[in-house]
Amino acid sequence: MPARIENDTLLRALAREATPYTPVWLMRQAGRYLPEYNATRARAGDFLSLAKTPALATEVTLQPLERYPLDAAILFSDILTVPDAMGLGLEFSSGEGPRFARPLQDEAAIANLSAPDPSRELRYVLDAVREIRRALGGRVPLIGFSGSPYTLACYMVEGAGSSDWRRLKTMLYARPDLLHRVLAVNAQAVTDYLNAQIEAGAQAVMIFDTWGGTLSNAGYETFSLGYTRRVIAALRGEAEGRRVPCILFTKGGGQWLEAMAASGADALGLDWTTDPHAARRRVGSRVALQGNLDPMALLAPHAVIRGQVRQVLDAFGPAPGHVFNLGHGISQFTAPDAVAELVDEVRTYSRKLRARLAG
Amino acid sequence: MPARIENDTLLRALAREATPYTPVWLMRQAGRYLPEYNATRARAGDFLSLAKTPALATEVTLQPLERYPLDAAILFSDILTVPDAMGLGLEFSSGEGPRFARPLQDEAAIANLSAPDPSRELRYVLDAVREIRRALGGRVPLIGFSGSPYTLACYMVEGAGSSDWRRLKTMLYARPDLLHRVLAVNAQAVTDYLNAQIEAGAQAVMIFDTWGGTLSNAGYETFSLGYTRRVIAALRGEAEGRRVPCILFTKGGGQWLEAMAASGADALGLDWTTDPHAARRRVGSRVALQGNLDPMALLAPHAVIRGQVRQVLDAFGPAPGHVFNLGHGISQFTAPDAVAELVDEVRTYSRKLRARLAG
Repeated sequence: MPARIENDTLLRALAREATPYTPVWLMRQAGRYLPEYNATRARAGDFLSLAKTPALATEVTLQPLERYPLDAAILFSDILTVPDAMGLGLEFSSGEGPRFARPLQDEAAIANLSAPDPSRELRYVLDAVREIRRALGGRVPLIGFSGSPYTLACYMVEGAGSSDWRRLKTMLYARPDLLHRVLAVNAQAVTDYLNAQIEAGAQAVMIFDTWGGTLSNAGYETFSLGYTRRVIAALRGEAEGRRVPCILFTKGGGQWLEAMAASGADALGLDWTTDPHAARRRVGSRVALQGNLDPMALLAPHAVIRGQVRQVLDAFGPAPGHVFNLGHGISQFTAPDAVAELVDEVRTYSRKLRARLAG
Repeated sequence: MPARIENDTLLRALAREATPYTPVWLMRQAGRYLPEYNATRARAGDFLSLAKTPALATEVTLQPLERYPLDAAILFSDILTVPDAMGLGLEFSSGEGPRFARPLQDEAAIANLSAPDPSRELRYVLDAVREIRRALGGRVPLIGFSGSPYTLACYMVEGAGSSDWRRLKTMLYARPDLLHRVLAVNAQAVTDYLNAQIEAGAQAVMIFDTWGGTLSNAGYETFSLGYTRRVIAALRGEAEGRRVPCILFTKGGGQWLEAMAASGADALGLDWTTDPHAARRRVGSRVALQGNLDPMALLAPHAVIRGQVRQVLDAFGPAPGHVFNLGHGISQFTAPDAVAELVDEVRTYSRKLRARLAG
């Protein structure tokens, strides 16, 4: 018999079952906008130590749940743990984004690349998953996650974030064989990593395809979605007697929702440029939808935040299968109060919407 | 009787008339990838002096036409000349993007904002248009351009480029009345500016809505397209006895093509994330389409460039109404040879496509 989850609203919405209100969680909900997060991070010394110490990762994962009645916890970790475990040497220089000490810049490095064994090289993540599950005590489900094979490859080849992904795109057009080799290894690594998270206790998983939207229309299928589909097909679909749903989010992927809906994912994340009503019409009832408030709306006065939340809920409508979220990670400049307003408005207004539908 | 244009293929394609081949020009075709451009810029001292000296702007506008058989010239200028003329003080610090000395950060500045008189404050642009027309001697049409009201507002409020447009979005959500005031002034300013360019000799105009794609689905109509429509409706549609077509390009706007096609624009620019075939199906025969090769494809070997060009031409198909272009400005890291390959392949392959259609 599955371990009991006190609040399983998220899982029911992801299964497109009716729920009394629209569940809500926020991408990057454990993050720099929270003073308690910054305090823990300061204790850890730096971001990577925070991510690599299960007790601290557990602490920050639970922080937003202490403040807000959120419907899910999401594992606190970094998107680049997998290539780090492959030996690329993840570094964070202060004030800048992530960087690899040994990016994939020659054929030999690519030939030697292999998928890590998560139970060894990524054990700290699995330990964190187990510890978070214990700390949660069944209150809400825990979401595990990974970057998509393509998004990981972007950083692995480029060596760092980029505005044009020039190195990556040069490889893509000039030596697609090399990029396909990287992507095949990544697909295996992401599959193993997510399955290990599920085995350790993740009750849903999300694939962040943060940079898939920088591909051409033809390239998205060839270099991103094709490999993500391979991952999804190989995921353990069940654990603890329960379906473990998979959410796929391609930022800037609004033009490709039909293809994404056919990927095998249970739900699609939408960024704020996508019209929720049109999205639902396009994907039918095949998948749940998650999103999609502009994260910058949280910088507005409270009344405006509540109005924007209502607009998003109205656009998705009261039919089952919506998980409220932002269209991208929460900004570090968000006031913690603003999130309280958002969560409260989602809860109260979505209840009203459903009552109206029933009435 | 209209002044003769030796090669009017661009204008005929924009009017969705049959042409013997697909016309081609490239966004930012006069730019840093050309050594002769860098030489002229070095002589000018800095970018702004280059843009503000009609003889030098003329020189660089014509440089790509000396190298490649392009079907259009585009005015060399900066997207931010209009707010500069409004008194915001445009500056380029070396290695960084544009910056305003006096961004719009209080209500008084916004209340005092007014549309400049292009014949005075932007006379250097109109002088450049006239001088370029003389230098072109009727070889190909000259395209004038402006940033969209929203894209100008992004820089005016933010003060510089941004990854999240936080200041702008804060105003949008917290004080939309202020942003609407800026946008109304911008719409008037852009209208006057484009009409002045047309009067000075621009034979087509393009509106660059570079940042419209960062708006939410609802926000795009309210804050970008609504004002662009206002501009298009007030454009002089004819000069020298000929239609002056308007091309609208919203980067990241692929989800909104139907609305853009109803804006009154003669043509829509597509970035490389949009499937040309689907785009044509969605907009019908109302507008011509321009685009949409990934600029990074130009970093590949010549044979790959030619293959990618053919893929784009195949995706648009041989029906009238396609102007070949990149999906965004050409990268400064492009080899000049690569552009020669592109232009040649567009010319030869599009002729073949048409022959096949006729045969």
